Amino acid sequence: MNTAPAETRQDRFDRGLEVLTRVDGEGGQKVIDSLADISPELGHQVVAWAFGDIYDRPGLAPRDRQLVTLGMLTALGGCEPQLDVHINAALNVGLTPEEIVEALLHSAVYCGMPKALNATFVAKKVFGERGLLPVG
Amino acid sequence: MNTAPAETRQDRFDRGLEVLTRVDGEGGQKVIDSLADISPELGHQVVAWAFGDIYDRPGLAPRDRQLVTLGMLTALGGCEPQLDVHINAALNVGLTPEEIVEALLHSAVYCGMPKALNATFVAKKVFGERGLLPVG
Amino acid sequence: MNTAPAETRQDRFDRGLEVLTRVDGEGGQKVIDSLADISPELGHQVVAWAFGDIYDRPGLAPRDRQLVTLGMLTALGGCEPQLDVHINAALNVGLTPEEIVEALLHSAVYCGMPKALNATFVAKKVFGERGLLPVG
Amino acid sequence: MNTAPAETRQDRFDRGLEVLTRVDGEGGQKVIDSLADISPELGHQVVAWAFGDIYDRPGLAPRDRQLVTLGMLTALGGCEPQLDVHINAALNVGLTPEEIVEALLHSAVYCGMPKALNATFVAKKVFGERGLLPVG
Amino acid sequence: MNTAPAETRQDRFDRGLEVLTRVDGEGGQKVIDSLADISPELGHQVVAWAFGDIYDRPGLAPRDRQLVTLGMLTALGGCEPQLDVHINAALNVGLTPEEIVEALLHSAVYCGMPKALNATFVAKKVFGERGLLPVG
Amino acid sequence: MNTAPAETRQDRFDRGLEVLTRVDGEGGQKVIDSLADISPELGHQVVAWAFGDIYDRPGLAPRDRQLVTLGMLTALGGCEPQLDVHINAALNVGLTPEEIVEALLHSAVYCGMPKALNATFVAKKVFGERGLLPVG
Repeated sequence: MNTAPAETRQDRFDRGLEVLTRVDGEGGQKVIDSLADISPELGHQVVAWAFGDIYDRPGLAPRDRQLVTLGMLTALGGCEPQLDVHINAALNVGLTPEEIVEALLHSAVYCGMPKALNATFVAKKVFGERGLLPVG
Repeated sequence: MNTAPAETRQDRFDRGLEVLTRVDGEGGQKVIDSLADISPELGHQVVAWAFGDIYDRPGLAPRDRQLVTLGMLTALGGCEPQLDVHINAALNVGLTPEEIVEALLHSAVYCGMPKALNATFVAKKVFGERGLLPVG
Repeated sequence: MNTAPAETRQDRFDRGLEVLTRVDGEGGQKVIDSLADISPELGHQVVAWAFGDIYDRPGLAPRDRQLVTLGMLTALGGCEPQLDVHINAALNVGLTPEEIVEALLHSAVYCGMPKALNATFVAKKVFGERGLLPVG
Repeated sequence: MNTAPAETRQDRFDRGLEVLTRVDGEGGQKVIDSLADISPELGHQVVAWAFGDIYDRPGLAPRDRQLVTLGMLTALGGCEPQLDVHINAALNVGLTPEEIVEALLHSAVYCGMPKALNATFVAKKVFGERGLLPVG
Repeated sequence: MNTAPAETRQDRFDRGLEVLTRVDGEGGQKVIDSLADISPELGHQVVAWAFGDIYDRPGLAPRDRQLVTLGMLTALGGCEPQLDVHINAALNVGLTPEEIVEALLHSAVYCGMPKALNATFVAKKVFGERGLLPVG
Repeated sequence: MNTAPAETRQDRFDRGLEVLTRVDGEGGQKVIDSLADISPELGHQVVAWAFGDIYDRPGLAPRDRQLVTLGMLTALGGCEPQLDVHINAALNVGLTPEEIVEALLHSAVYCGMPKALNATFVAKKVFGERGLLPVG
């Protein structure tokens, strides 16, 4: 929650890190770590702002945020590394493999077949790594 | 459902039209009508395929489909007419104004501020038309 | 053709202007005119480079170039003013209204329904202005 | 054609598979096969809808559909796997290597140099695999 | 600067508002005001995060930030309202009309002619409102 | 400068090559070389038009052009190979590693976190190759 009366930069980071770890698991931490020698500030902002200030707000359930996120990452294109992290995250917050696959099928209507296919093949990779294939 | 043993083109259209009307209300019908003199086949495919074959599948709740759809339309950019239809649809299938606004705030993390702002101003227009302002 | 032994900047412009006029008709000229007080150099490059150096090459028929162009403008999104010019251009170089509508229907497979719809509604406007409605 | 009085789901798939095989060759089949354990329904829709309902319509020649498709895939960006399939398809339906290369050069005008380059390097890979280098 | 030992939410907003006003002038304030009844939190984040946390960092001059921003908004497409604000901002922080026009001409190389034209016509509107036409 | 009274195709190429070499170093030359057997004309246009006609214009400093270019390539998405060339180019024309990293952090506001991350990881690769890590 972002109504605390006063926070240091570190407070906001710590708050975000707790959310990041809960949602993205080690995939999120790896991204932050890999930014350490190039742009630690971008890592800080992902944690403190994206996860601390936005993700943690109570107005939309974590599961619902992942549905919106999967739609966005599929539509943007070229975001396969982020889809990898967020398909893992979707599983972490309670979406089933069947729901994820259905959401990506649904994306074909709005984004076209190529982007739906690209996202679905990322799901295949993630599900394979987690022993969730075949789906259904 | 798409397991019926045999359907005519008209059967598929009728099935999709029922879903379109339920989800999009008159906004969807207006889009189909406006295609009549330029591309009736595109209107047919929106109804028979997008709504009949995909939207009606049981694997993801209508409300969840709208969350994915809002994410995609925001990310694609330049889809304000479709956001208008689908923010209406989101309300029709049970998302609250607060959830919709929160989903669009969430989109800032993944799509950046400009696209989040563009989508939010479409929501402002739709909510205004439906007497739902101010939100919260 | 761009194998002339030596050309001035004006030569290249004149050569491109002949192609622009043939392909885009007055729509193209209007765009160039409207750039005169803000970026005459952009107008020059559209004429001398896009039309003089690229469009005029013999390796692909003008009609075929318009098919590729309609696909690109539909996919990019937010290019409705350019779609207006190039749907007119497509008619000018011999594509039929039915072929244009079919190309935009085809785009739904690769770009999704929203972009296919946006492009089709530009075609409706252009065809209406040229007395070509209803199509088919 | 999609005017058959009544078709089963399997009928539509079979009809589409015949078109897919003719246009995309084994590249298309490989994509469908690779979806079997993650999203067989997406594979079904690519075949039954994209190829059965849309690609097979008589209003635009297969060669012309590929020109539109190359334009769209180049413009979308991040669709290199689909460009691979569809540059092969373009050759299969009668576009020459020279026409394909010229279409991708043309794309630089509308999509900018980076996307034109990305698509051209996919063409280089495909042409190399088919013994078609150097072009011209 | 974001090294203050502890800040309230209001502190961060106030700090960002000072930057927003300096960079965007009244255009920025109007955007925030128009969010008041639909998504005041999005307005807060634009001010507190985008301007307070990022824009105000010392590592890149305001003028340089506007050059990057003009490039991004042109490339994204469909962001004409934001281009309006940021072409004004570019003038506010010291870019000349000639430099802005040149940056948008430069964008044709990377984004293609349609997006370069769309952005240039926004510049024409802004420059006209500020009595800066003709340029050069 | 493009006001020379008359130039051959070769003159324009030679003029552009001098600029390309100065800005992009060997990265640019490699791209041109790799086009030789697939689309030498695209290579010619990159050199003669993009670098000869546009890059070399005096209205915007090379350093400023790279700032705009980094913004565009980050926003477009899927342009990692071009980001590689142009992050090198940015260093070649005088931007510091710190400024480049800051520009990419700034991009998160307008393009969202995924595209900012993708671009930053290209910078990490380039800086690593040039012995510039860690930054700051």
